[in-house]
Amino acid sequence: MTPQSEHCVVGIDFGTLSGRALVVRVADGAELGTAVHSYAHGVIDRKLPATGEDLPPDWALQDPQDYLDVLRHAVPEAVAHAGIDPGAVIGIATDFTACTVIPTLADGTPLCWIPGLETRPHAYPKLWKHHAAQAQAERITALAHERREPWIARYGGRISSEWEFAKALQLLEEDPEVYHNTERWIEAADWIVWQLCGNENRNVCTAGYKGIHQDGRWPDPDFLGALHPEFADLVTGKIEHPLSALGDRAGGLTAQAAVWTGLDEGIAVAVGNVDAHVTAPAAQAVDPGQLLAVMGTSTCHILNAEQLAEVPGMCGVVENGVVTGSWGYEAGQSGVGDIFAWFTDNQLPGPYGVAARRRGIDPHEYLSGLAAAQPVGGHGLLALDWHSGNRSVLVDHELSGVILGQTLATRPEDIYRALVEATAFGTRTIVEAFGNAGLPVTELVVAGGLLKNEFIMRTYADACDMPLSIIGSEQGPALGSAIHAAVAAGAYPSVRAAAEVMGRVERRVYKPDRHRAKAYDTLYGEYQRLHDYFGRGGNDVLRRLRRIRNEAGASS
Amino acid sequence: MTPQSEHCVVGIDFGTLSGRALVVRVADGAELGTAVHSYAHGVIDRKLPATGEDLPPDWALQDPQDYLDVLRHAVPEAVAHAGIDPGAVIGIATDFTACTVIPTLADGTPLCWIPGLETRPHAYPKLWKHHAAQAQAERITALAHERREPWIARYGGRISSEWEFAKALQLLEEDPEVYHNTERWIEAADWIVWQLCGNENRNVCTAGYKGIHQDGRWPDPDFLGALHPEFADLVTGKIEHPLSALGDRAGGLTAQAAVWTGLDEGIAVAVGNVDAHVTAPAAQAVDPGQLLAVMGTSTCHILNAEQLAEVPGMCGVVENGVVTGSWGYEAGQSGVGDIFAWFTDNQLPGPYGVAARRRGIDPHEYLSGLAAAQPVGGHGLLALDWHSGNRSVLVDHELSGVILGQTLATRPEDIYRALVEATAFGTRTIVEAFGNAGLPVTELVVAGGLLKNEFIMRTYADACDMPLSIIGSEQGPALGSAIHAAVAAGAYPSVRAAAEVMGRVERRVYKPDRHRAKAYDTLYGEYQRLHDYFGRGGNDVLRRLRRIRNEAGASS
Repeated sequence: MTPQSEHCVVGIDFGTLSGRALVVRVADGAELGTAVHSYAHGVIDRKLPATGEDLPPDWALQDPQDYLDVLRHAVPEAVAHAGIDPGAVIGIATDFTACTVIPTLADGTPLCWIPGLETRPHAYPKLWKHHAAQAQAERITALAHERREPWIARYGGRISSEWEFAKALQLLEEDPEVYHNTERWIEAADWIVWQLCGNENRNVCTAGYKGIHQDGRWPDPDFLGALHPEFADLVTGKIEHPLSALGDRAGGLTAQAAVWTGLDEGIAVAVGNVDAHVTAPAAQAVDPGQLLAVMGTSTCHILNAEQLAEVPGMCGVVENGVVTGSWGYEAGQSGVGDIFAWFTDNQLPGPYGVAARRRGIDPHEYLSGLAAAQPVGGHGLLALDWHSGNRSVLVDHELSGVILGQTLATRPEDIYRALVEATAFGTRTIVEAFGNAGLPVTELVVAGGLLKNEFIMRTYADACDMPLSIIGSEQGPALGSAIHAAVAAGAYPSVRAAAEVMGRVERRVYKPDRHRAKAYDTLYGEYQRLHDYFGRGGNDVLRRLRRIRNEAGASS
Repeated sequence: MTPQSEHCVVGIDFGTLSGRALVVRVADGAELGTAVHSYAHGVIDRKLPATGEDLPPDWALQDPQDYLDVLRHAVPEAVAHAGIDPGAVIGIATDFTACTVIPTLADGTPLCWIPGLETRPHAYPKLWKHHAAQAQAERITALAHERREPWIARYGGRISSEWEFAKALQLLEEDPEVYHNTERWIEAADWIVWQLCGNENRNVCTAGYKGIHQDGRWPDPDFLGALHPEFADLVTGKIEHPLSALGDRAGGLTAQAAVWTGLDEGIAVAVGNVDAHVTAPAAQAVDPGQLLAVMGTSTCHILNAEQLAEVPGMCGVVENGVVTGSWGYEAGQSGVGDIFAWFTDNQLPGPYGVAARRRGIDPHEYLSGLAAAQPVGGHGLLALDWHSGNRSVLVDHELSGVILGQTLATRPEDIYRALVEATAFGTRTIVEAFGNAGLPVTELVVAGGLLKNEFIMRTYADACDMPLSIIGSEQGPALGSAIHAAVAAGAYPSVRAAAEVMGRVERRVYKPDRHRAKAYDTLYGEYQRLHDYFGRGGNDVLRRLRRIRNEAGASS
């Protein structure tokens, strides 16, 4: 029998390309072992493996077997790596990309596993970045405004093509047979919990942010029926289920799941959660004024507050959506690290690549070093960070990047710096949107891969004129899940209490420099003016260029 | 004694970095030999060699000894290369960058050669691209409008910072002692003729386009005195001199210049001329509707017409300014080939460089090949070609480049194509300005280094929806000078008559494609809207970014 001081939990973070398991000691949050398992099918966005059929543009599917394989491989490997007795593990919790949503039978069997349906693209899980339901999303948004649905303001005025209802409507309209075979329309975040504990279970977080669950209700059948007559039963027939609070125990680990994971049957399984949201307690960023920024290829922002406010352009606000007892706000930037990666992939001159290799550093570190020494505004450039569209606050995926001020003296590091600054201004735009809605932000808490780049961190501190705190773990989401596992197992009374012990953050690692912050104020004013000109209808040239591009491509 | 059928002339083209001599047979324009001599001091834009002192931003000086060295090296080498008897050469003519202007003593000695003054930056020739007199140019322009000076409309409403009066006012205000030592303020185009024939001589072309000589008059002392009390004597004390027509004989080659060049003393020396202007007869582009575009690092446009029109944003219109008997119009784009070179120097990814080298082609040819296959608008991009400011039609050197529409899928060849298209739209803007002023352009006649790039030529034909003719010589300016030398030597009665025999052009080499031209109409509409927004006061962000850049650089 393991002494309580050595009790452990396992957090599993299901990402876009792989899943990671992390073994954490309950008493102090020490991270003892970890393992990653890559999805064999990755992202299915070109051809459906079963048929070789080409998928249309903007599709992104997955194979749910890959999720189970993470349980079978990553969990036992992480436990082995930790060197602990598997019997010391008292709970398990998961977080997932979202909205990744699966059509299943009433017993949870994914439709793509039903013989005969493996050839139907719509029978597979639609990954968060499946963007082919844009038309449906726009109709849902328009109808909500037309009918003055009270919930639309909770989503910044727009329902995303990434979310449950848009994807379900696309399914109905494009493959009604698969839609009618769908007995449960369920987030992967909830489906994986079902596989672990044997009962269907739905969490408040995805229901609120990715479904349209507000004030205890879903959109009513009238609303859904107005979108399509057969859509009226979506909630009542395929979604509705009691919701569980975050950190609740969903059930005990089944015998089958115990075999998969090598853990003891019956240990606590926590309800599902979302990768960004679960990181907030891991980074001890759950108090008002603390904006968590999970900075990777894109950035997700999470903020908790005591009160409800309607923030234009936010992704969503959900009561108890991040931690019980607070309103949880989500916002985001659709392109951040992937803009920098696009730059180094497409615009890094040969000699720069050679110089970076010679020093044994990657191009980002090399460019950051060159850019860091510049005075603010010294490059004469200004960029808009919309290369992958704009999530908050414009919620427009048809926007694109802009850079201006280039002269014959402009160097690669100047452009790189301008792109970093543009994303920082994108964050500041979100910070100010919260502030203007009565939710002042006083601290940025950063998690995600970009926190390792000091130049980027300093630029954000200066450009946002705000101190930056840094999460103290390299596995923020998995640690967040582990915290939820500990609560589900009864080791702590609440997620907040568990986070105080098991979470970790270094406060105020980067503080704004007064002079640089003042200089950035001026540049940010210029950014705002261009942001509104190109983003709010002053000149819709970016949307028109995209249309011309799509039409030229189609006719060539 | 050489038979008349073997008579030759020498044309010398003084460029930004080197001078080229070309030996041409008078009877048929055959190019027999050529040689280039690079300036030892090149462009002096960082440090003054005599002191090591840093020059301020936007300065560009030269050393006049480099010009004489071209006479001493390039001319004899070209004659040797031609394999002719030097005694067969009956005339010599020159063309120069302009406005490149030199402060000298009354005998033509450059002030920078006076002991004690070699340490004073203002004692050196200011090269055409010395752009540090912007403030002075703006004051001259403003005062001209205030006083309703009739000549201001002849310059598109703006006096350029590149020209004689702005540079002279900068000289006076920043180094009054050197200004007062300046006995002659003279174009390098005229100074070099003075060195060849021994007498001061001034040509109508630079006096009209780069000075402010119109309708037989210079700006009066009242006007000049209102800019600065001591400026009143600029014309009367330092500039005024009878003007000579293009193709006139300025004098005979001096004994000294005969030694330098190896040519016979006393042969005809033609009056000075400008590199772009002199190319028009070489390309047989001297009739109404034919717009000569000399496309190199920048582009200069020359158009002749029977009538006087006031074209907004043109550089200038001068009676007899290109060929005697016509009004000669000049316009220009301050950055063209140098924008493409900036791109390949600063944004060409390593693998692209490797691929180009492997095929044995330069990066421009490689990128052009990749870009050429795209449908119009397929890259989704739009750029403004102001990386080196805008000459026509905005006449604003404080503008800078803009590019928009970038996504994570944007490739280097997409950006390269967008930059080429932007410069083509810049040309179209000028073509339309002439058309709107009653001077329809029906044919582009291209000279200059870029004519070798078929992709660029096709893009211009399509984007401007106009046929392109191509000069038949690789040495347009030097051939143009040779034509003037032949006229000065009395071999032809006029430049037009000489051009008909000695000039050469291939007509309508590139014709616009109807579909591509139509697609470009739409993109050009977007270009115009952004052109006016960023260039005509909708948003002066480009000017502000430049100011911020300059201040940041100064304080860092």
